[in-house]
Amino acid sequence: MADKAVILLSGGLDSATALALAKKERYECYALSFDYGQRHRCELKAAERIATINNVAQHKIFTLNLSEFGGSALTDKSLAVPKSDKPIIDKSDDIPITYVPARNTIFLSIALGWAEVLNAQSIFLGVNAVDYSGYPDCRPDYIAAFSNMANLATKAAVQGQQIAIETPLISLTKAEIIKTGDALGVDYSQTVSCYDPTDSGAACGACESCRLRAEGFNLAGIPDPTVYN
Amino acid sequence: MADKAVILLSGGLDSATALALAKKERYECYALSFDYGQRHRCELKAAERIATINNVAQHKIFTLNLSEFGGSALTDKSLAVPKSDKPIIDKSDDIPITYVPARNTIFLSIALGWAEVLNAQSIFLGVNAVDYSGYPDCRPDYIAAFSNMANLATKAAVQGQQIAIETPLISLTKAEIIKTGDALGVDYSQTVSCYDPTDSGAACGACESCRLRAEGFNLAGIPDPTVYN
Repeated sequence: MADKAVILLSGGLDSATALALAKKERYECYALSFDYGQRHRCELKAAERIATINNVAQHKIFTLNLSEFGGSALTDKSLAVPKSDKPIIDKSDDIPITYVPARNTIFLSIALGWAEVLNAQSIFLGVNAVDYSGYPDCRPDYIAAFSNMANLATKAAVQGQQIAIETPLISLTKAEIIKTGDALGVDYSQTVSCYDPTDSGAACGACESCRLRAEGFNLAGIPDPTVYN
Repeated sequence: MADKAVILLSGGLDSATALALAKKERYECYALSFDYGQRHRCELKAAERIATINNVAQHKIFTLNLSEFGGSALTDKSLAVPKSDKPIIDKSDDIPITYVPARNTIFLSIALGWAEVLNAQSIFLGVNAVDYSGYPDCRPDYIAAFSNMANLATKAAVQGQQIAIETPLISLTKAEIIKTGDALGVDYSQTVSCYDPTDSGAACGACESCRLRAEGFNLAGIPDPTVYN
């Protein structure tokens, strides 16, 4: 019987690549997406398309309303998504307003609960610490600390079955991620990275996530299939 | 301005005591309860009563459906809550069927997100590693690992504001918890500990949680105000 993995699937470029890598490793894949009150809800439709294309064992969309807490431009409609026409991302130390408080911790915790019930060996998370937005919960030392905690948290772990938190993209540039996925046949036209897309999923081209993505395709030398608004 | 604390408030005996201790330390208290698909939903009404009695700054009931994953008698109605008339708890190494996969990790993670938005200094959790049910996510080494992870996870932490995970009951017996709360004026008649209560909140008297609670009052020498079915 194949090992099982829970894949956090946002509908974006990175998580689609993480899923492709989990499939390459012959995991039976359980995709987990979150309807968390995000502004860019068409990413859930993208997640559904990607789950279907990849023929995952199960795709679950878990609902929890992080917009109740506010504090992020991604969930709080009173805050604007910052946009710019600068081609290169501002690499300052500031954590941007698009940071959602404790989001990866909450998502990984719920994935941990599902992984335990499924008897899964791994959780795949498409975080990236190179071409990223400076979010604290994308860094390797955070992932290591979560993994340590997770392996004390569960009945499965206490009974000897450790759960691995797999972050295969963490040290890749956006261009390297795109090259990796392209070689595995990922259809990036089905993914949505924009923080502020139209209802149909067309990208704004001006938010930080759009600019990182466009630069990635450019540096990878691969045509950008993104539909821009 | 008072320091702020998020208190995980289940409606049970332990979390009501944790709230009393947070108040004693003069925190401005933000109570957080979860509507997670639990069988014992009258505990949410108990949480509301306790929040009101204690005049908390805010009480939030966060909805997320952990019964979607199943795997626990507390959320999966196809599994029965074990009952016994044995007065003393079975202290075997087995983790009982009432364990909810990754529950404390999920609840603490959401508390972390709210704490960050509130700019809170502490999160209070009424876990207890002495007279407990053998749940892995109630042990001190788990709490220490969560705390370590939490302080790498957030924008607040990266910017220097650490969040403390306070577990003031962790090394107390149930009788000691009851004596502590009684001295602080906690009205335990308002709390519900039973895993399988009636709709009105009357306790079964036979589940593990009921037996631990009854034994605690007995050993504390304090009259048990629990309404039994």
